[in-house]
Amino acid sequence: MNLIEKSIAAINPPDADVFARARQRLADQARPAGSLGMLETVSARLAAIFGTLDVHLPHKVIITCAGDHGVTEEGVSLFPQEVTPQMVFNFVGGGASINVLGKHAGARVIAADLGVNHDFDPDLPIFHKKVAKGTANFARVPAMSREQAARSIAAGIEIVNELISQGPLDMLGTGDMGIGNTTPSSAIIAAFSGIPVEKLTGRGTGIDDDTLANKIRVIERALELHRPDPADPLDVLAKVGGFEIGGLAGLVIGAAAAGRPVVCDGLIATAGALIACELAPAAKDYLFASHRSVEVGHVFMHARLGVEPLLDLKFRLGEGTGAAVAMELLEASTRVLADIKTFEEVAIADAQK
Amino acid sequence: MNLIEKSIAAINPPDADVFARARQRLADQARPAGSLGMLETVSARLAAIFGTLDVHLPHKVIITCAGDHGVTEEGVSLFPQEVTPQMVFNFVGGGASINVLGKHAGARVIAADLGVNHDFDPDLPIFHKKVAKGTANFARVPAMSREQAARSIAAGIEIVNELISQGPLDMLGTGDMGIGNTTPSSAIIAAFSGIPVEKLTGRGTGIDDDTLANKIRVIERALELHRPDPADPLDVLAKVGGFEIGGLAGLVIGAAAAGRPVVCDGLIATAGALIACELAPAAKDYLFASHRSVEVGHVFMHARLGVEPLLDLKFRLGEGTGAAVAMELLEASTRVLADIKTFEEVAIADAQK
Repeated sequence: MNLIEKSIAAINPPDADVFARARQRLADQARPAGSLGMLETVSARLAAIFGTLDVHLPHKVIITCAGDHGVTEEGVSLFPQEVTPQMVFNFVGGGASINVLGKHAGARVIAADLGVNHDFDPDLPIFHKKVAKGTANFARVPAMSREQAARSIAAGIEIVNELISQGPLDMLGTGDMGIGNTTPSSAIIAAFSGIPVEKLTGRGTGIDDDTLANKIRVIERALELHRPDPADPLDVLAKVGGFEIGGLAGLVIGAAAAGRPVVCDGLIATAGALIACELAPAAKDYLFASHRSVEVGHVFMHARLGVEPLLDLKFRLGEGTGAAVAMELLEASTRVLADIKTFEEVAIADAQK
Repeated sequence: MNLIEKSIAAINPPDADVFARARQRLADQARPAGSLGMLETVSARLAAIFGTLDVHLPHKVIITCAGDHGVTEEGVSLFPQEVTPQMVFNFVGGGASINVLGKHAGARVIAADLGVNHDFDPDLPIFHKKVAKGTANFARVPAMSREQAARSIAAGIEIVNELISQGPLDMLGTGDMGIGNTTPSSAIIAAFSGIPVEKLTGRGTGIDDDTLANKIRVIERALELHRPDPADPLDVLAKVGGFEIGGLAGLVIGAAAAGRPVVCDGLIATAGALIACELAPAAKDYLFASHRSVEVGHVFMHARLGVEPLLDLKFRLGEGTGAAVAMELLEASTRVLADIKTFEEVAIADAQK
């Protein structure tokens, strides 16, 4: 078995007994049943993942996967490809949005080069996992070969395994950087769902009406040209995907295989999660959707994954920024489950006074 | 002038120049314009309140105002009145939901007795501001006198002033505890908006269809009986309100007068904020809506206030729990504004390498 197959085979379901005990404790707490809504659900899921009602998540890491996209030749984005490596340097420098929000959430932020069109110094403190210097323009040819698609997913799994070998890891966040990468992301959900491209395609970093119309046409034609097979996620990734999207899929599979919760960011990170869960439906038990982005395709991805995002702050940035903010909510949920007293505990405390 | 009038007169608008500079900095940051959505808006508002682009909020307090309601005689709630003082003891003991979520947010939690039907030991570490031992049953007579309504609002203002005299205070959260208090809250928004009561009335802690139908009838009849004047917020509070709701209104006025942001919790806290802002529209500049609750009336309150809540986690608890979670987002927003580098700052950092 290769690394992807081995990792998928290693995914175990979370502990159903602990999940039931968590649900019972939540119901027994001194407050109306269900009154903490979504925090209750995620707290029970986290308990089941870790096998305890008292979950602590001090070791958090956000991996921001970067890659470039040949399809930018078609004029689908506001920014030039050069911005992708510039932002990788900004991540390393610590002044980017994800550095600031990651720090606030108590998470380390590490960038990963899955396919940036730039030769980084091997000493740059990022994960060096370049598959190629950007995808091919999928308006003309497949974005990548099937082998490259598999390699990008394996690279994401390797990142998780390397993190775990380096020290404790309690929660993983996924984020992206790649000029043009809302285009492959919308193409991926279109390929899986069969929903018309125009319903799934948004303005990315802020393109105008004409550019949006062009972006939709580019995706429609690519899907007609390559006919990605929705039953074959590797085929979808290869034909209309991106290297960072493959890496993001690998992060989800790797985290699930390692029994760690993975908090998924916006449209692009969720495109990766979709590839992961189409390959390995069992990974869904470890996946937490952080937020609903302004990008119109995102809601269809969440629907297909059967997940409900925690936040809707009108973000449309990526990098892992939504995942960072949601990590704070997940951490709060662990305290809800463990620390809010039950009616019985309150009565015992009163009796001891 | 009395304390309420003096406090309303003391509300100054936030600094428009700092707001504009904050907006400019957000636009100049190395990311697509507007891409951090609602966090951008609140960060600029906080900057304007504090007169600086580098806001820090270490000193946070959540005040959970408690009161009882005579209208519980009409069978509008699942729980008996005795639960209100029990929960006050639970807040003091530190094991309630708001203690846990307040601690996670780094906020002190202090309960306040505005009108609980129980004689608390004067040494109990809460704010002792009892107006009376519960309101009258507004299904038959006005909930309180006009003087009591004014006293409850003044008590909320006094709490803010006492907190500020005790030490630094950067942000205030509001929360409630009071069996039966979704009934006066729905009545208040009905009185102000004229929207049919059935559209504004929810299940509170979880009542069934028959109890909900009864609750709606009770509110409809009370509004017909007392005809509260929507142009006179004190009249609305007196006829169909609650003491803790008056206290919650006072917290908003007091915070605004002191130039401090106030984070408003769920249906009941927002009913208080509504009374405050109908009395003092200038207070809105200091008000932040934390979350949209499951209670159907909440969205109409937000619409009338012209505020957009940050979170929608399907909470229906109160106590300040939504405010606590939102405080973490407001704090994150201050880092967004101050710490994410502008394109110019990134270029300067690169040049210095």
